[in-house]
Amino acid sequence: MGIHLIADLLGVDPKKISKVKVVKKILDRVVAKSGLRSISSSFHQFKPHGVSAVYLLRESHLSVHTWPEYGYVALDIFACGDDESALKAYDMLIDEFRPEVIERNVLRRDLYERVKRADSP
Amino acid sequence: MGIHLIADLLGVDPKKISKVKVVKKILDRVVAKSGLRSISSSFHQFKPHGVSAVYLLRESHLSVHTWPEYGYVALDIFACGDDESALKAYDMLIDEFRPEVIERNVLRRDLYERVKRADSP
Repeated sequence: MGIHLIADLLGVDPKKISKVKVVKKILDRVVAKSGLRSISSSFHQFKPHGVSAVYLLRESHLSVHTWPEYGYVALDIFACGDDESALKAYDMLIDEFRPEVIERNVLRRDLYERVKRADSP
Repeated sequence: MGIHLIADLLGVDPKKISKVKVVKKILDRVVAKSGLRSISSSFHQFKPHGVSAVYLLRESHLSVHTWPEYGYVALDIFACGDDESALKAYDMLIDEFRPEVIERNVLRRDLYERVKRADSP
């Protein structure tokens, strides 16, 4: 059904991930260029720094949570029916955030297809 | 840093997951009772049916995407610093949606802690 890219990034420049204004600019650009289709987006500014951002997409969602004090970003891109745009957005975000360490998991959220296949004669 | 519960549910009654109004009621109640702290929430009604919902939380986020035509729900609860509330919300949502099949993954998003531990003498 969908691809879910789950990535934890370390060693990101705190200046890039401290404020909603900066993060929003990056994410708006990446979502627009990736081919993902944004429905709405919401943001929260943590004090003194740190950002949460979630984009509702036609394809599902994209979220970013940041801890500038650790140079840490938790990134999720969940896209149904469009692996290519999801992977493009992921690559663009890595280019933007330039982490020193990346831990990435890719989940296939295709339980429906698997159960259907198992049921068919 | 956080717990991320990722669950795919099948065999959910389509009536419970077709419309924003119904899903919002369930999620508002679960978030409020679980101990998770909502900052904002956004919803999208797909035509003719199907819902996307994302709650920005103090703890990170909770999202639900539904495909009533398959009885399918994709659920994510990502909570930093509060495993207990995340697990409580999860249990409550399973009680609400009553799926026939559940596939659950639990990710520990603790890259920062692991890297820090590996670096210490």
